[in-house]
Amino acid sequence: MIVTLLTDFGDYYPGVMKGVIMGMVNVPVVDITHSIEPQNVYQGAFLLYHAYRYFGKAVHVAVVDPGVGSERRALAVVTKNCTFIGPDNGILYPSASQDGIVGIYEISSTVSRLVGELSSTFHGRDIFAPAAALAVRGELLDFCREVSGMLKLDLYDYRVLENTIRCRVAFIDRFGNIVTNVRAEDLKGKAFYLAGIEFPLVKTYSDVEAGEPLALVGSFNTLELSVREGRASEITGIRRGNVEIELEVLK
Amino acid sequence: MIVTLLTDFGDYYPGVMKGVIMGMVNVPVVDITHSIEPQNVYQGAFLLYHAYRYFGKAVHVAVVDPGVGSERRALAVVTKNCTFIGPDNGILYPSASQDGIVGIYEISSTVSRLVGELSSTFHGRDIFAPAAALAVRGELLDFCREVSGMLKLDLYDYRVLENTIRCRVAFIDRFGNIVTNVRAEDLKGKAFYLAGIEFPLVKTYSDVEAGEPLALVGSFNTLELSVREGRASEITGIRRGNVEIELEVLK
Amino acid sequence: MIVTLLTDFGDYYPGVMKGVIMGMVNVPVVDITHSIEPQNVYQGAFLLYHAYRYFGKAVHVAVVDPGVGSERRALAVVTKNCTFIGPDNGILYPSASQDGIVGIYEISSTVSRLVGELSSTFHGRDIFAPAAALAVRGELLDFCREVSGMLKLDLYDYRVLENTIRCRVAFIDRFGNIVTNVRAEDLKGKAFYLAGIEFPLVKTYSDVEAGEPLALVGSFNTLELSVREGRASEITGIRRGNVEIELEVLK
Repeated sequence: MIVTLLTDFGDYYPGVMKGVIMGMVNVPVVDITHSIEPQNVYQGAFLLYHAYRYFGKAVHVAVVDPGVGSERRALAVVTKNCTFIGPDNGILYPSASQDGIVGIYEISSTVSRLVGELSSTFHGRDIFAPAAALAVRGELLDFCREVSGMLKLDLYDYRVLENTIRCRVAFIDRFGNIVTNVRAEDLKGKAFYLAGIEFPLVKTYSDVEAGEPLALVGSFNTLELSVREGRASEITGIRRGNVEIELEVLK
Repeated sequence: MIVTLLTDFGDYYPGVMKGVIMGMVNVPVVDITHSIEPQNVYQGAFLLYHAYRYFGKAVHVAVVDPGVGSERRALAVVTKNCTFIGPDNGILYPSASQDGIVGIYEISSTVSRLVGELSSTFHGRDIFAPAAALAVRGELLDFCREVSGMLKLDLYDYRVLENTIRCRVAFIDRFGNIVTNVRAEDLKGKAFYLAGIEFPLVKTYSDVEAGEPLALVGSFNTLELSVREGRASEITGIRRGNVEIELEVLK
Repeated sequence: MIVTLLTDFGDYYPGVMKGVIMGMVNVPVVDITHSIEPQNVYQGAFLLYHAYRYFGKAVHVAVVDPGVGSERRALAVVTKNCTFIGPDNGILYPSASQDGIVGIYEISSTVSRLVGELSSTFHGRDIFAPAAALAVRGELLDFCREVSGMLKLDLYDYRVLENTIRCRVAFIDRFGNIVTNVRAEDLKGKAFYLAGIEFPLVKTYSDVEAGEPLALVGSFNTLELSVREGRASEITGIRRGNVEIELEVLK
């Protein structure tokens, strides 16, 4: 069994979560990322969805949690191959529903007694990490009650119109590539315009010269806007995920 | 057994340390953090103290080491549950003394022969990493001599005065939260003022509106200054740890 | 067995590669670094060369890959102790040749069928990660054909002239130290000048006062330019690796 972590915590806090988990069970804990943009639940859901499937059977902990300390529920979602653990804000839904939901459970805050006192700010340490360790042990449901539903989130909420696509920036990667949520099958056109710049649709980076903009179907199987050996995020001014954009389409 | 690493090395150098350790023993090596502010020994001590306890029995390597290459000693501190390894500059003291010191040892620089030549700049690789591997094997004390003491460091060196608290910023986290070293039991007041801004003392983020400042007892069980869905570090201009601040207290 | 990863991918993409590998084989996957400057093949080669040797027998995956999606080959290089996996652009050569090359193989893109569809942008996930898992299983050569050579890269391509050294910045570390590629045995002089600043050659940081520049033989066994408790990268304006510089030498 493997436990994965995906958060917006940056540094240090994930190390503490690993301490809690590895102090309870002997299991590898793998970072998917801790650089989700602060409180960007959509981005967390998008990136978890495109990573979880490779791990096989695993416990996935995903914590992007603007509602920590409020009444939002802590969930464990048992699916065909996995257990997904995190807040009930939509972050788990696309992955869990794709893998096939078997049961949805609310985690009792009493799991925090296995760690220490329950804080109001760091449920990653106090609730989600011990829940992950309990899931590895097969004991998590002893601390849960089944519930009837969970908050849903649609990753692919874009609209293809006559000459434009209204869509969402999911992720800006380290190379400044703009990853959108528009799937390959909805890309009909020769080029896309954003911020007045033409991004011709090609197969691969080397189809254009260095420094030139391009559009392609990237590794998420969605439209990406790039500059070969450059940064699309800089020439367009789009530097964050979960931003709505309108692309003009040249047919 | 687990080995943890906490350093100010950023990227790459920790990967080399893992090579040394995992090349010598088959053990999981877990990152607590490598983003300690450069040469901020206090911050290293504070963050190690709030992380080590969760791991159970472990070897903890902590290297924030402005004195590398000088005469400062390399230490192994055996405690009730752990072995702490690092420079003798105070970074290990709060954790080791809390866990219960059993013996303090100076590590001989001859451990570096297990790795290669001793450099003057990277004792993380040349001394502390092989020492950690030897500790896992139970052979570290063969390369050590017992010493009578170690440099101490007081994490909680703040002063509560009539209408103010003179304290220390321990850590600015990724959300811009200002983590101080003032413990919950010393927080008597309705609000705190820093940089002319009022931070009302509340229980949790959702007690104020988005964008509003607040103070609460955070996950370190100390006072934190925050802005809900914002950045306290930006509105106060306090962007680094180990800074002394004076808080006005509204009673 | 251990698998290591060294890339310029930053965050997230390495987590996906770990999913592919750990979904196929039960093996620890260790990060050397994912902060190679984007597309800086030289820096990747330099940092891999100074890290791989510590791990003992291992599979090393190194992906800095400006040519992804073009005709460049994907290689597996079997050496005396290791298997090196990555693009054929020189990044693997210094390490592989030092360890002793036993065989050079081109990896068939059919390995991507073990993962999903072959993307044109993320061969780290689609080719190099499954190749690493196959190498752990001892099955990689079933997906390869032997080839007669690989692209070479010389890490130490500097020139020592009468009063100057023409060399290369390999790496700027987190402390702002400028790591050059000039080996200790070629350092004849009392001081070095860069950007009009004198860096006296000393043994260790504490040989100068805080805030003062210095030169020393660092942990790569090459010349480093530093400022004690400061940042050489800032006072010289040299902030990136793989830059050619000319040092004046004071004899």
